[in-house]
Amino acid sequence: MALVVQKFGGTSVGDTSRIKEVAGHVQFTHRRGSFPVVVVSAMGKETDELYSLANNVTQRQPGREMDMLVTAGERKAIALICLALADLGVPARSFTGSQAGFITDGVHQDARIQEIRPQRIQETIAEGIVPVVAGAQGVSGSGDVTFLGRGGSDTTAVALAHAIGAELCELYTDVSGVFTADPRLVPHARKISEISFGEMLEMTATGCPKPAMRSVLVARTYLMPLHVRSAFTWEPGTLVKDANFHQQEPDPQAQEAQTMERPIISAVTHDSSQAKMTLLAVPDRPGVAATVFRRIADLNLDVDMIVQNVSDEGVTDISFTVAKADLSVGIENMETIMAEVGGKGVTANSDIARVSLIGAGMKSHPGVAAQMFETLAAHNINIEMITTSAIRISCVVDESDMEQAVLALHSAFGLDKAA
Amino acid sequence: MALVVQKFGGTSVGDTSRIKEVAGHVQFTHRRGSFPVVVVSAMGKETDELYSLANNVTQRQPGREMDMLVTAGERKAIALICLALADLGVPARSFTGSQAGFITDGVHQDARIQEIRPQRIQETIAEGIVPVVAGAQGVSGSGDVTFLGRGGSDTTAVALAHAIGAELCELYTDVSGVFTADPRLVPHARKISEISFGEMLEMTATGCPKPAMRSVLVARTYLMPLHVRSAFTWEPGTLVKDANFHQQEPDPQAQEAQTMERPIISAVTHDSSQAKMTLLAVPDRPGVAATVFRRIADLNLDVDMIVQNVSDEGVTDISFTVAKADLSVGIENMETIMAEVGGKGVTANSDIARVSLIGAGMKSHPGVAAQMFETLAAHNINIEMITTSAIRISCVVDESDMEQAVLALHSAFGLDKAA
Repeated sequence: MALVVQKFGGTSVGDTSRIKEVAGHVQFTHRRGSFPVVVVSAMGKETDELYSLANNVTQRQPGREMDMLVTAGERKAIALICLALADLGVPARSFTGSQAGFITDGVHQDARIQEIRPQRIQETIAEGIVPVVAGAQGVSGSGDVTFLGRGGSDTTAVALAHAIGAELCELYTDVSGVFTADPRLVPHARKISEISFGEMLEMTATGCPKPAMRSVLVARTYLMPLHVRSAFTWEPGTLVKDANFHQQEPDPQAQEAQTMERPIISAVTHDSSQAKMTLLAVPDRPGVAATVFRRIADLNLDVDMIVQNVSDEGVTDISFTVAKADLSVGIENMETIMAEVGGKGVTANSDIARVSLIGAGMKSHPGVAAQMFETLAAHNINIEMITTSAIRISCVVDESDMEQAVLALHSAFGLDKAA
Repeated sequence: MALVVQKFGGTSVGDTSRIKEVAGHVQFTHRRGSFPVVVVSAMGKETDELYSLANNVTQRQPGREMDMLVTAGERKAIALICLALADLGVPARSFTGSQAGFITDGVHQDARIQEIRPQRIQETIAEGIVPVVAGAQGVSGSGDVTFLGRGGSDTTAVALAHAIGAELCELYTDVSGVFTADPRLVPHARKISEISFGEMLEMTATGCPKPAMRSVLVARTYLMPLHVRSAFTWEPGTLVKDANFHQQEPDPQAQEAQTMERPIISAVTHDSSQAKMTLLAVPDRPGVAATVFRRIADLNLDVDMIVQNVSDEGVTDISFTVAKADLSVGIENMETIMAEVGGKGVTANSDIARVSLIGAGMKSHPGVAAQMFETLAAHNINIEMITTSAIRISCVVDESDMEQAVLALHSAFGLDKAA
């Protein structure tokens, strides 16, 4: 029987009636002829509440104890799902990350999966019992409980799906799929029926919040097809796989869409979670970038969109984006480094947003970049930074311009829903 | 019978003995149980020679006539291949691009495929006759012969493979596959047995010369597996498909390679064909980038690695790379634009090279960027520009440092062949 991993996010299991509904869906899957393996996040805002409890106790929060604390959330959820399944007559058995065989490194609050030893899960499946696995957790080599971090349940699900040879990993969430833009910003955004791993990766890397980027990386590496779909409407969502782009319906409006070597724009993403830091007038000599980004790596900061551009005068500005939450620690460390290497100083701007156009073929069509910049200019939106990849162009703009930029680009590149 | 498109590049059919050898391989493929459809480039340096003839006649070279001229090269090659096949008792029939149904736009010397109407090819296959199709050519809507440009034969092959439903497109060339770095620079580079479309695309976008980037874009869009291989040794080469990365042999030296959520470095590429242009102190206001890149698009320049970084003082430097051959026309046009928009001026540096690290997972591992910059610093190599994507980090360095940079990175990231 084909194995299907079904992962349910926090809002999907937000209260007991939702848990019953999820259990009903798992039962339905089983009856329909696939064997479900369930991965579940903590209920609703439970993880937030656990952090809040810790904050009320102390600000000194050693990672080991924090991981012990927050992983309690998923433990509750797996037990409740198993109870609800048993109530429906579906035999089920709960597993913590450790029990499910998730071996991770020892980086508390942000552990990486090193290996999965899924024997117990496989034995449970062989017994005809549905395994229900706690998301986002594992055990380190030294036997400590570890937490994979926010969004880690998606990664748990995809990695487990690969480890047990599932044919599909379904990620149930509170949205009905992946859209051509955030439907909250762009009311006429369209749900994407199929998208490739590469485009999905660029989308999650530039602001599309679900699925978690790490899980897309794992899916892409191991070619595990994902189905991102709603646990509320249960309608078909977005299939992430080696998408065969030409099977998507061409836009009848767009003449260009009819041609074979056309650029294919998939989506517009945005991200206002990042701030921009600029290291000013850094001496243009070997080793400066290495010093900067080794420090960044040691701080485990999630840096993105590195831009360095040497001017004539033997100095260079290095800019990069960093999570707004990490900005103060970033500035502090970079000021130290500027003092060491002799740079002029550090500036930061947290009122920025990145708007990205994702799609294939833009690299061989310089007109795509020109059209993107023209569209922004036509709306009087200034561009602060530009970076490009083979399937993406990103512009950093003022945060107040973000919404208009997304709307304008979505429309300019023919992504709007047919009227 | 499974259809296989076999494309033979210029050196593969460089002289009549090579043409006979290629015909022998086509016969062997046929006998082995696949039905071959052949795409062929002009023989050896023939295309160069045709351009040289034109240059000796006149410097005024209207695109229509140039396309008529250079497409004669492939016409010779397809006829000779058919003669050689007939000599071996294999019935074969030659087709120009137009006869094969390649409808293109009207951009002479750089035409894009709009549509393929492969009826004649399909009828020929149905008769059991091997079609031999001229690479890199088509016909425009107005009935003119068009040339797809250098490297266009790869694109012809991939597009035709998709149009006729072939199961594989073999690109025969003078190298034995795709390597972890250019073997001329890195003697211990390894041949990659399998690589994904996404990584292959980033490699060709950053300097890997074969296969042609446009053909990889088409293959990626239509999920046509490619086999890049040698027409001299006939050994198995590199399969470009939805590579299942974990099937590649892990490097026993690299502990990190053993873990599931590891960064997977595929290759180091380099490109010294590009020059860097910087537009200095451009007013930081909406529309400037649009003006610049619309002009670039209108000039049909292949621009890459756009970097814009706004400093504090209301002005911005915009840098980008452009083919060295296009540098003078680029400078001329940008100087005009600088005068229009009020920028300080244009600088250019053609003594640069771009070195890129390609691989999955680097975005979630800031240590990869740090290690790349540290490796360059350890060799006293200065970095002029940096850009990143989800699966690539590129650094622009001095051209004289390129070779050492490639060697150092190849070694630092564990790509060297096991001793």
